[in-house]
Amino acid sequence: MKDQAKKKIEDLAKKIINDIGQGQNPSFDVPIRTLSNITYDEKDRILRMGNAKSKRFFFNLAHIRKFVQTTSVATVAKELIEMGKHLNLREVFYSIKRTIPGTNINIVDEQVETDKAIEDLELVTDCSREQLHINAGKNGFAAGRIIIKDREDTIDWSKMGSGGWAIPSNVEEIEFKKVEAKFVIYLEKEATWERLNEDKVWDKLNCVIVASKGQATRGIRRLLQRLSTEEKLPIYVLTDFDPWGFYIFSVIKYGSISLANISESLTIKNAKFLGLVGDDVTKYDLKRHIIKFKEVDQSRLNQMKEYDWFKNDKAWQRQMQLMNDMKGKVELAALTSKGISFISEKYIPEKIKNKDWID
Amino acid sequence: MKDQAKKKIEDLAKKIINDIGQGQNPSFDVPIRTLSNITYDEKDRILRMGNAKSKRFFFNLAHIRKFVQTTSVATVAKELIEMGKHLNLREVFYSIKRTIPGTNINIVDEQVETDKAIEDLELVTDCSREQLHINAGKNGFAAGRIIIKDREDTIDWSKMGSGGWAIPSNVEEIEFKKVEAKFVIYLEKEATWERLNEDKVWDKLNCVIVASKGQATRGIRRLLQRLSTEEKLPIYVLTDFDPWGFYIFSVIKYGSISLANISESLTIKNAKFLGLVGDDVTKYDLKRHIIKFKEVDQSRLNQMKEYDWFKNDKAWQRQMQLMNDMKGKVELAALTSKGISFISEKYIPEKIKNKDWID
Repeated sequence: MKDQAKKKIEDLAKKIINDIGQGQNPSFDVPIRTLSNITYDEKDRILRMGNAKSKRFFFNLAHIRKFVQTTSVATVAKELIEMGKHLNLREVFYSIKRTIPGTNINIVDEQVETDKAIEDLELVTDCSREQLHINAGKNGFAAGRIIIKDREDTIDWSKMGSGGWAIPSNVEEIEFKKVEAKFVIYLEKEATWERLNEDKVWDKLNCVIVASKGQATRGIRRLLQRLSTEEKLPIYVLTDFDPWGFYIFSVIKYGSISLANISESLTIKNAKFLGLVGDDVTKYDLKRHIIKFKEVDQSRLNQMKEYDWFKNDKAWQRQMQLMNDMKGKVELAALTSKGISFISEKYIPEKIKNKDWID
Repeated sequence: MKDQAKKKIEDLAKKIINDIGQGQNPSFDVPIRTLSNITYDEKDRILRMGNAKSKRFFFNLAHIRKFVQTTSVATVAKELIEMGKHLNLREVFYSIKRTIPGTNINIVDEQVETDKAIEDLELVTDCSREQLHINAGKNGFAAGRIIIKDREDTIDWSKMGSGGWAIPSNVEEIEFKKVEAKFVIYLEKEATWERLNEDKVWDKLNCVIVASKGQATRGIRRLLQRLSTEEKLPIYVLTDFDPWGFYIFSVIKYGSISLANISESLTIKNAKFLGLVGDDVTKYDLKRHIIKFKEVDQSRLNQMKEYDWFKNDKAWQRQMQLMNDMKGKVELAALTSKGISFISEKYIPEKIKNKDWID
């Protein structure tokens, strides 16, 4: 995989050199990443990028800045791959930022330019940012019955105390050495992870618990996806009962619009939504914990009801209708009102036992 | 320590029961936490809370709501201590939230009320939130030559791969089992931690590296403080060269206004500021990476120059003057422009070797 990314960058360079040798205007193709070039594949239940592309030329005043930025990022990525090192997005910006001699023009002025160039390079090379050795922030932790190898270290996720193992931005090179866990519980909320970890749910139910703070990062999605495809573990998702929680699940299961080009390596076809669902509000007497919708919540819900991947799905339409009728949302943490460890001892085990999820 | 917190809560309860038995209006004292009740102790170089207190009565329409909220939180805390469990701030809110029978009055309506009640209980009992078994979010990670014990697990921070050990909100019960590290590097920026971890700086320099994202949480400050006092490790701090970075150091070293009541258990007297400093900008040719001040930066800088703990400190006044003259800030990540691993291989080792820090 390392060689693949390097080869793709070299192919890009050769193409440009070849253009020059033939006296042509140097160029490369960039696939278009907007909603118009995205389709929802109903059969495979995944968001896919179409074939629309735009050409970027060197001798073109409107193109040259982006052309140079993309090739500069390619140079850094190749160097990183060869050195076996990684940079994060901010550092890539600084490593490229310089003034072109004899001018007062900088290659890049703002990080947003290198970020865009990196996205373009992903599309051009068909390699993920992670494969290009460029990382973003990390934002989650894991505990449970799995032993991994990362760099030279053997790491037992069942011996992480109260902290957990911090999931890195890039999980491509992690090896799963011993997997006793039978499934994975992914939690939107850190607080719920702390609850489950203190209650040793991963020990009692023989599983792994993973959390992010809000939207799952690419590193976390990729980790879940690898556990799902390589180790065949079911992934159960728990979020708040609100449009944002449903969208977190949607991204995990079907992919996201902005990353449709790498849907295959990020989406988790067998992810199951365990809760909260509207029915829990009645069943567990959570009505007094409903938080009234603000306008932004309602409009997000209205928007999501129309997404292709929700539109024809009865179970989701039903949940969204329940939420719509409630005109409010309910947080996972509200289960605390039923008892400190209610979620660990009753809610999750019963849901899994009764296969009470949305698929 | 566990018994101490429980005893303090019981003392509070006994005081109230005693008031009732004597036919008096039940009350307790809450120390006042505003700047007017805070002083900077020049000798010990620490922010301290004064002795001003306010009395809170049960039979007082302006007091009763807070009175009941504080005692409700005390009830939850006692239960948590006895069970050996922990709740986070949001969960405490849900566990207290209920309607008083026969009325339409809720004990609490918003989390901000329980948060305040928890702060009050800290002041009333002189126990930290952590001792009351109430946690907040966590936000950092550690790697290096230390082996700890947390719950039943032995955790070797030198075998954490690319991720690191996620530092929990509450580090009171962690034991340091084997400390080979000779010092600690604390980094404001996660990206710098990733750099140092990939370069195995903690291995080469025999130390520990700790990062948060921006302002250090209480858990991280307490961890650093314990490493400083119990293990006598020097703590070196690296932040961006901007007012916010300086303030991060200031909070670590002298304490913060809002937590002056627990300064003693959070401040780190021997913390040293390693960089970035204004001199680095010239020395390492970082001028072109200066990010122009916005108004908010300038006014924060002006404000900080006047703080008691900076006002008479020549080294800090000099740095602030340099920043003022530059009318801009410089990020740690800008060192990447000198080479991918410049910070790991040259900047940090030389600074430490030459004792080039602000004390």
